[in-house]
Amino acid sequence: MRPLTLNPDRLLPADPTTRAIARELYATVADLPIISPHGHTDPAWFAGDAPWSNATELLLAPDHYLYRMLYSQGVSLDALCVPDKRGVPATDPRAAWRTFAENYHLFRGTPSRMWLDHAFSTVFALDVALEAASADLYFDRIGEALATPAFRPRALFERFGIELLATTEGADDPLEHHAAIRRSGWQGRVVTTYRPDSVIDAEHEAFRPALARFAELTGEDVESWSGYLTAHRKRRADFRAAGATATDHGFATAQTANLSAAESEALFGRIIAGTADGADAELFRAQMLTEMAKMSVEDGMTMQIHPGSYRNHNAGLFASYGRDKGADIPSRTDYVRALKPMLDVVGTERDLTIILFTLDESTYARELAPLAGHYPCLKLGPAWWFHDSPEGMRRFREMTTETAGFYNTVGFNDDTRAFLSIPARHDVARRIDCGWLARLVAEHRLEDWEAAELAYELTNGLVRKAYGLETPVAKKAAA
Amino acid sequence: MRPLTLNPDRLLPADPTTRAIARELYATVADLPIISPHGHTDPAWFAGDAPWSNATELLLAPDHYLYRMLYSQGVSLDALCVPDKRGVPATDPRAAWRTFAENYHLFRGTPSRMWLDHAFSTVFALDVALEAASADLYFDRIGEALATPAFRPRALFERFGIELLATTEGADDPLEHHAAIRRSGWQGRVVTTYRPDSVIDAEHEAFRPALARFAELTGEDVESWSGYLTAHRKRRADFRAAGATATDHGFATAQTANLSAAESEALFGRIIAGTADGADAELFRAQMLTEMAKMSVEDGMTMQIHPGSYRNHNAGLFASYGRDKGADIPSRTDYVRALKPMLDVVGTERDLTIILFTLDESTYARELAPLAGHYPCLKLGPAWWFHDSPEGMRRFREMTTETAGFYNTVGFNDDTRAFLSIPARHDVARRIDCGWLARLVAEHRLEDWEAAELAYELTNGLVRKAYGLETPVAKKAAA
Amino acid sequence: MRPLTLNPDRLLPADPTTRAIARELYATVADLPIISPHGHTDPAWFAGDAPWSNATELLLAPDHYLYRMLYSQGVSLDALCVPDKRGVPATDPRAAWRTFAENYHLFRGTPSRMWLDHAFSTVFALDVALEAASADLYFDRIGEALATPAFRPRALFERFGIELLATTEGADDPLEHHAAIRRSGWQGRVVTTYRPDSVIDAEHEAFRPALARFAELTGEDVESWSGYLTAHRKRRADFRAAGATATDHGFATAQTANLSAAESEALFGRIIAGTADGADAELFRAQMLTEMAKMSVEDGMTMQIHPGSYRNHNAGLFASYGRDKGADIPSRTDYVRALKPMLDVVGTERDLTIILFTLDESTYARELAPLAGHYPCLKLGPAWWFHDSPEGMRRFREMTTETAGFYNTVGFNDDTRAFLSIPARHDVARRIDCGWLARLVAEHRLEDWEAAELAYELTNGLVRKAYGLETPVAKKAAA
Repeated sequence: MRPLTLNPDRLLPADPTTRAIARELYATVADLPIISPHGHTDPAWFAGDAPWSNATELLLAPDHYLYRMLYSQGVSLDALCVPDKRGVPATDPRAAWRTFAENYHLFRGTPSRMWLDHAFSTVFALDVALEAASADLYFDRIGEALATPAFRPRALFERFGIELLATTEGADDPLEHHAAIRRSGWQGRVVTTYRPDSVIDAEHEAFRPALARFAELTGEDVESWSGYLTAHRKRRADFRAAGATATDHGFATAQTANLSAAESEALFGRIIAGTADGADAELFRAQMLTEMAKMSVEDGMTMQIHPGSYRNHNAGLFASYGRDKGADIPSRTDYVRALKPMLDVVGTERDLTIILFTLDESTYARELAPLAGHYPCLKLGPAWWFHDSPEGMRRFREMTTETAGFYNTVGFNDDTRAFLSIPARHDVARRIDCGWLARLVAEHRLEDWEAAELAYELTNGLVRKAYGLETPVAKKAAA
Repeated sequence: MRPLTLNPDRLLPADPTTRAIARELYATVADLPIISPHGHTDPAWFAGDAPWSNATELLLAPDHYLYRMLYSQGVSLDALCVPDKRGVPATDPRAAWRTFAENYHLFRGTPSRMWLDHAFSTVFALDVALEAASADLYFDRIGEALATPAFRPRALFERFGIELLATTEGADDPLEHHAAIRRSGWQGRVVTTYRPDSVIDAEHEAFRPALARFAELTGEDVESWSGYLTAHRKRRADFRAAGATATDHGFATAQTANLSAAESEALFGRIIAGTADGADAELFRAQMLTEMAKMSVEDGMTMQIHPGSYRNHNAGLFASYGRDKGADIPSRTDYVRALKPMLDVVGTERDLTIILFTLDESTYARELAPLAGHYPCLKLGPAWWFHDSPEGMRRFREMTTETAGFYNTVGFNDDTRAFLSIPARHDVARRIDCGWLARLVAEHRLEDWEAAELAYELTNGLVRKAYGLETPVAKKAAA
Repeated sequence: MRPLTLNPDRLLPADPTTRAIARELYATVADLPIISPHGHTDPAWFAGDAPWSNATELLLAPDHYLYRMLYSQGVSLDALCVPDKRGVPATDPRAAWRTFAENYHLFRGTPSRMWLDHAFSTVFALDVALEAASADLYFDRIGEALATPAFRPRALFERFGIELLATTEGADDPLEHHAAIRRSGWQGRVVTTYRPDSVIDAEHEAFRPALARFAELTGEDVESWSGYLTAHRKRRADFRAAGATATDHGFATAQTANLSAAESEALFGRIIAGTADGADAELFRAQMLTEMAKMSVEDGMTMQIHPGSYRNHNAGLFASYGRDKGADIPSRTDYVRALKPMLDVVGTERDLTIILFTLDESTYARELAPLAGHYPCLKLGPAWWFHDSPEGMRRFREMTTETAGFYNTVGFNDDTRAFLSIPARHDVARRIDCGWLARLVAEHRLEDWEAAELAYELTNGLVRKAYGLETPVAKKAAA
């Protein structure tokens, strides 16, 4: 079996001059707390603090980065214990893990490989590489560890040095796990995020049931335009009470609209009546982005927009397995025209923060950096999803810094449901950002002390500011 | 206060082998004259040679790169002495400068920071960095210097080693400052450029008044199609008499058209009658690009096309402050289909030069380099506007050289209204180009003597050729 | 005259640490056999093994990379012996070569320059650089060499270490040269590729005559939908008998369709009747991509899709010289929506291989890597055409590896009609890939032994697998 080691200089630029600068910068941020303001971990883990069962259930079956790659090479999702619409397949978790181990070479050069090796080494103290020969050793060692108290969710949360972890819940979510966390007296700061997509997107397969729960949770007549808006306001307040400082919105496009109240009401009427066509559905999503922005002006919540993913592209897979099965594909995304209607309404607000994400890197230098380098309310989210990777982060900095600067960006967020990868992901971001800063210093475009200040900002400073983690949102809204 | 120094190796690649080659190449071009064939400085400065008043008025208030960034972080334009539609605000210039100094960290990693530091150090001999603590020192020192003869426009022009500086004037401009420069006997070569956008774009807010002045200046019936075209020919001649060798055209798209004479005349009729819709306005701009190209075939003027900016994106700001306030945002630009109608007419002309610019870097390798690497009349302008930056220039060379080569590019132009940044901008271009050449040499893709030849071409040779600065345009037209 | 030498470290990264790793990796693959699964050399060369006549006819006149650049700088195609519609111009080949030599500096920084220098040095043992002064020496030396047996096509094929060379023929091609090669007993493995564009694209100027030959060669009623499909099946079998393991399809877009049998038949009826409009023609191409994919499921042939070129952009040139004269320009290409109809039909097939190429690099990270990193049937072809260059290959790896990994790519293919450039092109790819792997090792993102495995895969392993060169296609189809 081959050894597994993490080189202390990994991901730092190869040139010795630049690497030496990067190494010094990285040392100043390596151990700073992890602030994770946007992600998809399950709050039930922290509410119940139950142990995870085994390597496959924890690391493989829920990770779409992993099973999409294996699927692309002919491995069936069943063989990986990925549940289909009827539930978890009969596959033995150990057999699934062996399949993964045999194919681990597929991940060479991918961030998944780095995240996993980081977790294997630092969380489970494994010192041999994952391959067919070590598959059982891994499965056993991880399984044994998970059965011990030190590997329960809260213990790992603390061990990882997480200062704050945001999860994401729908507008129809009762937030009971968050309530349980608070009731438990545990001090770990796990907060929620308001993600109302399923009650806004009339083309979402769960739109009607989500709307019904939305009505139930708020006691509002959500089939009237004013009741529907009030229900959003109520739920935003519920979410803020559960620690939320932000909302999140993920549609196929970034289209916004600026309709009159009467037009909005009429449009909403068609949505509720079920007479809306595709263009109406798009227009309603567009208008609701603007409505959400207006509510953020009122209540101080930071707004995140994650557009540009063509969801459930694989028709056959969607039919059998449902959504979120690694078949979401980015597509070309326009921001300049799409955001204008919303910006005409809220663009010059100085106390509003709207964080833009993209899966279309051609917009970094062309649209996003110029927009964020002008509009007071706009900030750039970090390299996202497929671009949450060393090369992706490097391109993000190279293509945004010169026009938007550093201070119109918001630090890193991991956007993950893979809890054990969180330290690794933040570590990758810190290393790549320090490498970029080091390059600027080595090329005499930045002084060393400026780079040190920026390394802190990119790790902890900017994220606190962008997500209102310094000034509690409640105060802002009250002010 | 922190020291301000310019490292002699700044912007050269960090790898020692490559840096050594780049340093040698740079030494051969560092002191070559500045040829600035496209820009937006005010010819009145050189006509009147009056002293500038203070740092804010000279360096801050007119520079959209600076105030857009400050505005993006919540600073009002009023606080920066940027004039609104009613004129310059009451803000004290010193207070504005202090605001700028306090926020100078926002520019870390941006080209503005490098341009400014270069000017502070080399023009004003400042040796401490700009920050809150040095704001007054800067304001005083710059103000004192500007009051001396050595800092008047003509003196700086000469000190900067400028061989030629082109300004840009509208088709309705009387060119009186250029006339005054020539009458004065001063030998500095300041020429104009023909930019007829406001008499071509029926959607421009100044279209009708510009057209009226166009008629007045030419004595033509500009409301008839033939009179309108004749007026253009007359004004192009006026501009050539004021030294112009080039025209410039900046619309939202690169669309061209190839209408028959009858169709053009009918379309123009609708424009003049005020019955044209948006599609007509676009078609007219498109047709006029082709008309301008045909006139360039006649009179030898180099044609520049600067498309792809969504102007005045911020509706609120436009209402209060008017155009050119840092709210122009690039958008996706098509060239392949858009330019075809014009290229069907003039594409194979060997004595015509059309220089293409872009704000959409995804077109460099995909469209622009393949077009310029084929059509005799097409050349590629340098990295433009938001991309006039170290990373932007590097991407330009990496994405165009392999298909278009070096000889289908036209050297650098600064495109600036910030006169004091001109030496800095040309210096950045020389350093980045030498770094790129050095990389090719270090990777044995180019011989060292070839790189030296190219360093000269990219600095002085190609620009002279592309803008007809070797053979006077008048001769060409006569020939 | 200046010396011509090929530095052994050419194209390897300049940083000494990285270069040392790259050098070791390259040494392991430098001499591996050349597998060229996609190209456009003339099978008649290998069938007849006649000597080439001179440098111009062999190297200059057929190479669109060369004459497009010269044309862009005002050299006429006539002056380069490029045939127009009436045939080869009267220009003396030696004069054409001199023109080329005088303008050789135009190719600085381009891959053509590297390919040519490699051929000059390694094939013809020339040791001075090409320039005006050496033009005749080159012309003479190359001409003398070509007259000797060692420089005949088959001898060079063997000297180049080519294991397999695929040519490309139309559906209406009788494949007589391939038959002659097989009859000759020569052991060089030259195979064909099925490229049915001209019998599918109703807008192709040769559609009707191609269709007539298609009917003649198959004996089918190709004007009935079922006869037409049967004719394709027959010809695919003919091509497999001539060694083909792959098909190839090159339309302006990647659009696919998924029509019912009745809709397809009706559409085909309009195509044949000549009543189809542009939309019909596009829809028919789209549907035929899906039909070809379905036939590939049946017969095991690998399918290649090369979309995104705007063919014959220069109207004047097309009128005089016809197609393929360096006037094809890439344009923006969509894959996510375009491929979905076909993927709905065959996307989850594990034994099907569809190789996607692009001229639009903005799709690498955004669309192609995510698609290939998910769908079992999709693989990514190497950097293509204008991007078959050091920077193009580097961008390809940087933008695809993190999402698609290495194992969803298919190694290099040269796609060339310039036979003498084949070793140079493969050498460039090996060097750049080793440089990329070396960077991953230097940044501790990959172990050295993994990089060595991958260097082999990228050179020989993956191409054999993707093009079915391990398991003969016939067996697959029978199984």
